[in-house]
Amino acid sequence: MKDATEIYKLKTRKSYKLFEKSKKYHVNGVHHNIRFFKPYPFIVKASSEKFLVDVDSNKYVDYWMGHWSLILGHSPKNVKTDVRMQLENGWMHGTASKNSIELSETISKAVPVAEKIRYASTGTEATMYALRLARTSTKRKIIAKIDGGWHGYTTDLLKTVNWPFSKSESNGLVDEKYITSLPFNDLERSIKILKSQKNDLAAVIIEPVLGGGGNIPATKDYLLGIEEFCHKNNSLFILDEIVTGFRFRYGCLYETMKLDPDIVTLGKIVGGGFPIGIISGKNEFMNYANTSTFSKSSRAYIGGGTFSANPLSMIAGNSTLGTIKKKGNKLYQKLNSFGSETRKMLDKKFAGSVITTGIGSLFLTHFLSTNVHEINNATDAAKCNIKKLHDYHFHMIANDGLFFLPGKLGAFSDAHTKSDIITMAKSTDKYLTTFKK
Amino acid sequence: MKDATEIYKLKTRKSYKLFEKSKKYHVNGVHHNIRFFKPYPFIVKASSEKFLVDVDSNKYVDYWMGHWSLILGHSPKNVKTDVRMQLENGWMHGTASKNSIELSETISKAVPVAEKIRYASTGTEATMYALRLARTSTKRKIIAKIDGGWHGYTTDLLKTVNWPFSKSESNGLVDEKYITSLPFNDLERSIKILKSQKNDLAAVIIEPVLGGGGNIPATKDYLLGIEEFCHKNNSLFILDEIVTGFRFRYGCLYETMKLDPDIVTLGKIVGGGFPIGIISGKNEFMNYANTSTFSKSSRAYIGGGTFSANPLSMIAGNSTLGTIKKKGNKLYQKLNSFGSETRKMLDKKFAGSVITTGIGSLFLTHFLSTNVHEINNATDAAKCNIKKLHDYHFHMIANDGLFFLPGKLGAFSDAHTKSDIITMAKSTDKYLTTFKK
Repeated sequence: MKDATEIYKLKTRKSYKLFEKSKKYHVNGVHHNIRFFKPYPFIVKASSEKFLVDVDSNKYVDYWMGHWSLILGHSPKNVKTDVRMQLENGWMHGTASKNSIELSETISKAVPVAEKIRYASTGTEATMYALRLARTSTKRKIIAKIDGGWHGYTTDLLKTVNWPFSKSESNGLVDEKYITSLPFNDLERSIKILKSQKNDLAAVIIEPVLGGGGNIPATKDYLLGIEEFCHKNNSLFILDEIVTGFRFRYGCLYETMKLDPDIVTLGKIVGGGFPIGIISGKNEFMNYANTSTFSKSSRAYIGGGTFSANPLSMIAGNSTLGTIKKKGNKLYQKLNSFGSETRKMLDKKFAGSVITTGIGSLFLTHFLSTNVHEINNATDAAKCNIKKLHDYHFHMIANDGLFFLPGKLGAFSDAHTKSDIITMAKSTDKYLTTFKK
Repeated sequence: MKDATEIYKLKTRKSYKLFEKSKKYHVNGVHHNIRFFKPYPFIVKASSEKFLVDVDSNKYVDYWMGHWSLILGHSPKNVKTDVRMQLENGWMHGTASKNSIELSETISKAVPVAEKIRYASTGTEATMYALRLARTSTKRKIIAKIDGGWHGYTTDLLKTVNWPFSKSESNGLVDEKYITSLPFNDLERSIKILKSQKNDLAAVIIEPVLGGGGNIPATKDYLLGIEEFCHKNNSLFILDEIVTGFRFRYGCLYETMKLDPDIVTLGKIVGGGFPIGIISGKNEFMNYANTSTFSKSSRAYIGGGTFSANPLSMIAGNSTLGTIKKKGNKLYQKLNSFGSETRKMLDKKFAGSVITTGIGSLFLTHFLSTNVHEINNATDAAKCNIKKLHDYHFHMIANDGLFFLPGKLGAFSDAHTKSDIITMAKSTDKYLTTFKK
């Protein structure tokens, strides 16, 4: 029997050639480091509904869904219709534009903390601006993040992303000493660290579900405890809901835990797959961005940018949220039940050798190793058998055309159906048979 | 006779109402600080060719052209056709994708320094990553920029943007001490400053035409002198050609001066008005981004991001460059002659009271004041009568439907015709008549 790599290579000859060309022009051959996987990533020529199609015309059921930004699947009809219409009315106005007001009206109704909204073009920009607002409004410098927390490539947060957290993420950074890092879901140790830096603590920023760090939900007690400390200490409590916003319900995750964040960053789903990053929050903090009421050196000078609030991203976002709202709670019930069914199915099939983490429509299978028996934080996730996870994902890609970005969590979209869980179960069975040999 | 503000208010009643709503949701009412102007910016509902159309159905001949990103005008036919086709094939693949390879093939043929290319989604990201590469490859920290140089909102370069340069641009920044600043076009004083920091000098980053700082071209001698210093000192010489790339010729401006930059950032025109930021440069420096050959703390960890190399930005860019190339040298001859004719026309009309700066299709009228007689740098520009410039631009908006973002430079696109220069001349005459009264 051929192994997965051999099968993959036979199926992706055109991708191989194109990726060789890509390496000629591009470092690592890709434009986001995680998009590379061995032996080479297939090259996509088209996507629609639940499918990616590569240049060799292989069709994959996609669980990566554009970095989890496509909750309605690829190119949903309503959104496409609205975007096509907008193309006729211009894609770059470069000035105040109608669509941004419409999207903000929609978002502010669903996200109470969004008293003010600023559009940037990426999540990296959104978190950078959120910190600048926090530092400006508190006149403090230190930002606390989570071990394994991922908030984009901004210099201001590029620390303790990948295990081992004690090692720098990159050369060429300058302000790492102003970033402190907390053990996820460990309130006691986290508070101890925060206390030691409380006088200069501008903000804590947390993903309510650790995304890149292993698809691990924060406990309600942890988030409430950190929030309480922040508010007593006059530090900002920032939630990064770029992945979680509109992922589990029509709105943010924080509301289900009765949290009271000061700033919330959004992205991905709210842009319908078009470039977007959002800083939203309470008036009192957002207003530091006001360049007409604050002087040059007392304002928080935040973007913006050439492409901010461009009419296509705005209409794609508004059309996506409108479609979600129209579908009603049924959509989330479906997606959340697919997720929970899948997590159970996978845990059962692997019979104790994995833990499938996540909530709602997100799931990630961690292959336990001799010294990991629970997945509570990014260290636990990093100490699992990552190679096995890659092998498992690659097996599904090569043998059964199910696409998970190897090592990354999967997400259901409205384009998936119940039959996809059965297909995944069958592919997992095949993997287990091979694996047992 | 009614004054411009009164006329504008009468014409833009719907914009007024919508902008009031926008202020409810958005700090400053806008998503890029410069997009606000008094009494309130009109709200755009559509754009095509050389026109912006506001919600009151006023039509403006646009010289702002989407932050100067639209060299073919708004929504050119060829590009629109290609983008529509791409919509059918998906707008967010989230993995290695065909279109990025095609765009890189096009760019690398036109920009020799682009031995390797990395796509980000904005110029702010591109400059941030360029610096990270410079700091990593040199193991040094200090970046020198120009007084009045604008490279986006990244924390790493947010200093000496707006006059007075001695005052911080923002609260909430942390690494300002690693940014040093040089007087534009003053080689002797610049070299003196660079020498004083040479041991920790990672790079100098310069726009070959100071954009936001006043539309002032760098002299060839200045750029050659800085480049020579950089290369002798093993510091990187970075050119920010986000505005100038493909603006004056099919390729970058640096080649016309026989410069040898190490990294060049691109954006705007190369994305055809879709979100893009490009880091391009010599293999030896770009390769520090390689995550497979460098360890975690010795690599330059650069993006990327969710939307990097998204198929729409890639095809819009490639389609734009393809259309430019097809039009041949004639396009640039036309645009450059429009610019030069306009600069001459304006200087003549204002009879010594202004200097209209720029090269090629870019032009900006500086109203001289008692102590400014030449425009060599951003300080000269800042000391001009900025209020008059705003009044002049606003007069053209309100009375004659010519849109310049007040205070900012104008750019011709292929959608403009010779008659537009005559219209602008007539509007200027009207302004001068009012002004003389």
